[in-house]
Amino acid sequence: MTATAISKITDEAQIRKLIDNREKAVRARDVDGSVANVAEDILSFDVVNSLQQIGSDASKKRAEEWFASFEGPIGYETRDLSIIAGDNVAFAHGLSHVNATRTDGGQLDMWWRTTLCFRKISEKWVVTHEHNSVPFDVESGKASLELRPQEDSN
Amino acid sequence: MTATAISKITDEAQIRKLIDNREKAVRARDVDGSVANVAEDILSFDVVNSLQQIGSDASKKRAEEWFASFEGPIGYETRDLSIIAGDNVAFAHGLSHVNATRTDGGQLDMWWRTTLCFRKISEKWVVTHEHNSVPFDVESGKASLELRPQEDSN
Repeated sequence: MTATAISKITDEAQIRKLIDNREKAVRARDVDGSVANVAEDILSFDVVNSLQQIGSDASKKRAEEWFASFEGPIGYETRDLSIIAGDNVAFAHGLSHVNATRTDGGQLDMWWRTTLCFRKISEKWVVTHEHNSVPFDVESGKASLELRPQEDSN
Repeated sequence: MTATAISKITDEAQIRKLIDNREKAVRARDVDGSVANVAEDILSFDVVNSLQQIGSDASKKRAEEWFASFEGPIGYETRDLSIIAGDNVAFAHGLSHVNATRTDGGQLDMWWRTTLCFRKISEKWVVTHEHNSVPFDVESGKASLELRPQEDSN
């Protein structure tokens, strides 16, 4: 195996670990952990308004508000995760799933699409761009919060 | 300037050109041109349902349907485009804008978020993953089709 091939595997493993840790942090309602690998100047496209947010402080505030909207543990996982890593640039995409009880007593069981873009800075992978979303239904104009990967025939 | 730095500039320029050509193709209602640099196994997260689409045939079908929903020329541009290119992996993000007359006579003037992820395969950059979306409004559950970048205070 060439040094390049080994390096590529190592980079992918580092990013997978980073995403794993992030998921664990969400499940544990650990705000700092959930944004630990986010770049200070991250540009985020979030599931909900507004159009975009800039900076890790905005990501942290968003995580705080999101976690606070749930009672008890947060079920959280990523499915179909694909990671493509180059020397200093990488991206990953997958389907994210949350299953948790809201503070109003309702259950949130929702899937959405996640794309994470990374740069390796000072030998450490950081998320410099993040895009999370659900699609919408053209007829109703409503966000599609009920879609399930298995119901999605492609 | 080092060879690496020159190569990085060249890669960014190639990707910028690719995105420029894609925009021109959309404006010209040129289906083939609009998907010319899409990988055969592209994974797309689109603005509208479903959750995900796989393959360049799906991208082409989507472009055909989208172009056919408009009368006359399609106004199309990308704002705040940022391109980060590594050796064989790259990503780009920006805000996309369409302004066109629908076949039902209505005007579509809409901004959305675009993330493009690239791999260099056989010395050619191709889009292997694409994520387009609008956020939604939590209160109404509606997709936010009226957002404007200038109204978006971070």
